[in-house]
Amino acid sequence: MSRFLSERFSALEEYTPGEQPRDRKYIKLNTNESPYPPSPRTVAAVNAAVVGDLNLYPDPDCTALTAALAKRYDVDAEQIIVSNSSDDLLNFAFTAFCDGGRGAAFAEISYGFYEVFANFHCVPYKKLPVESDFSLDYRKYLALGCNLFLANPNAQTGIALPLEQVEEIIKSNPDYVVVVDEAYVDFGAQSAVSLVDKYENLLVTQTFSKSRSMAGARLGFAIGRRGLIADMKKIKYSTNPYAVNRMTLSAGEAAIADDGYYMANCRKIIATREYTRAELERRGFFVTDSAANFLLASSGAIGGRELYERLRGEGILVRHFSDAKIENFVRITVGTREQMDALLTAVDKILGEANAK
Amino acid sequence: MSRFLSERFSALEEYTPGEQPRDRKYIKLNTNESPYPPSPRTVAAVNAAVVGDLNLYPDPDCTALTAALAKRYDVDAEQIIVSNSSDDLLNFAFTAFCDGGRGAAFAEISYGFYEVFANFHCVPYKKLPVESDFSLDYRKYLALGCNLFLANPNAQTGIALPLEQVEEIIKSNPDYVVVVDEAYVDFGAQSAVSLVDKYENLLVTQTFSKSRSMAGARLGFAIGRRGLIADMKKIKYSTNPYAVNRMTLSAGEAAIADDGYYMANCRKIIATREYTRAELERRGFFVTDSAANFLLASSGAIGGRELYERLRGEGILVRHFSDAKIENFVRITVGTREQMDALLTAVDKILGEANAK
Repeated sequence: MSRFLSERFSALEEYTPGEQPRDRKYIKLNTNESPYPPSPRTVAAVNAAVVGDLNLYPDPDCTALTAALAKRYDVDAEQIIVSNSSDDLLNFAFTAFCDGGRGAAFAEISYGFYEVFANFHCVPYKKLPVESDFSLDYRKYLALGCNLFLANPNAQTGIALPLEQVEEIIKSNPDYVVVVDEAYVDFGAQSAVSLVDKYENLLVTQTFSKSRSMAGARLGFAIGRRGLIADMKKIKYSTNPYAVNRMTLSAGEAAIADDGYYMANCRKIIATREYTRAELERRGFFVTDSAANFLLASSGAIGGRELYERLRGEGILVRHFSDAKIENFVRITVGTREQMDALLTAVDKILGEANAK
Repeated sequence: MSRFLSERFSALEEYTPGEQPRDRKYIKLNTNESPYPPSPRTVAAVNAAVVGDLNLYPDPDCTALTAALAKRYDVDAEQIIVSNSSDDLLNFAFTAFCDGGRGAAFAEISYGFYEVFANFHCVPYKKLPVESDFSLDYRKYLALGCNLFLANPNAQTGIALPLEQVEEIIKSNPDYVVVVDEAYVDFGAQSAVSLVDKYENLLVTQTFSKSRSMAGARLGFAIGRRGLIADMKKIKYSTNPYAVNRMTLSAGEAAIADDGYYMANCRKIIATREYTRAELERRGFFVTDSAANFLLASSGAIGGRELYERLRGEGILVRHFSDAKIENFVRITVGTREQMDALLTAVDKILGEANAK
């Protein structure tokens, strides 16, 4: 830190990305990436002609991709903003809507970046409770008197609220924005996109990182009523208008054209998730009822941090969070069936050793 | 605009990117893009293996690219931050250093985004004078009592300050950050990177957009002392840690490895700039003494807006700014020799018609 840094940032804790170790080859189940590569058509879309045109700026309005998304999600192009990841869009929403004491709320267990954004933007915030089984009681999310950031399915737990409960929440907070963060929606939850025409305070964010195998391309989008989207664009055009590069735009357009490939992958991941859940439960784990591409799981026989470390020793990376409520858990990204079998074999070895002690 | 937008943004004017028209094919001399494509080695670096790995997050620390830049610019890796364009880095600098009334200053004619950032972040700012020939008198930039954003060469005019004058400015503002924005430095100005070890308040930003033919890839970097860079990273990791995508990282690494190709292009552009300047002067234009890849030029015979519009009619896009001091000028990006000859032919036609009136 230098002596020039503004005081308000001096105590700021930035976001900690999941580890990307380089010391050996791991089975990487720690950052909720898709185990499947982008489709051949997506890969082919980033061809030498596209890369050869990199001397030219990208289209700041992302016109072609926006049109493709509008068709895919049955909304108008003016209801969509595209940017450099959904983190970018969440940051815009904190910037645009949470100022002047309007504040923010989010679940006490959710995407860790919400708290980082709130602290970064000096936004007063409250953390809303989760139940003992990690589900959200939607009645505790009504009439909050501040903006709400609701991950659905929820981050870390994967648990989804049914759409009618999400709608009750939106309806009960008419003077504040409800951001429904649907990073994981394609793995089995109901999207709130169908409600955007009905509620002027609803903003839905989605990402190409998970269900569309493009975490490495950085591409997110938000859908809402025109007014909200115009606000979000004002933030984008005041900070980084050309936020999305040409290669990512080409890949994104191809990915939407190849929707069938990606949705088939989601179905595979859902099947593997259910298989893994059953196998972990058979081994005595408590596993959250996840509608995402990960499972939050805890074993009575071994603590969360120890399990994380032992799995790491076996060449398998999962994620451990030190938050008190989930410190006995590990979050396991759903990979391929083969990767999950390797995980289960490692779990058996570790639990066998734990029991032998 | 929605009723949810924070009041402080309601009157905000966002940045206006140069037009990217789609109605016909233009000779595009309006956004200071390189007329040369990325090198074959750069294009080859974004191969199917790289795109096929897009399901995995990029390296948030941009380790390999940072190491390559550190070697190229003879600094330590901890003295470099990489992000999604130098606009991103300028935004971080406004965020990190200008808060709490510390404020900002920049030349009255310079990169238009500085004023957008200042307004966006509610930073008090002052505009510093340029002389009647558009040069900067460095004595008017000493001991400012606020942070300084100094484009060198300057945006819009292309005029560069000699390094010893830049150093005087840095030295005279020891309690404030001096950001030297070197977007155009490779076209003939002296870089301040050689001073970063000497001055803790110096931050140099550069971009791959111009001299490295990668405007479409979005890649910028900043060099400074470790403390300043740590501050900038704090902002990056609190907003969008994975800001740079995998494809851009690969292209950027290849571009640094292929430095000779890009620096040869810069020499070609410099030669074409000098040719174009002489030809415009021969036609009675006043042309700024540009050390960048563009020329700011005005003809006594025709106004700036009219010349812009007439050139557009001839299929040639240049940029016109409505700021009072340069409203009689057009900014012309230096393209290939063939493009500049087409420009000159169009100018002759337009001036011939203007004289015939």
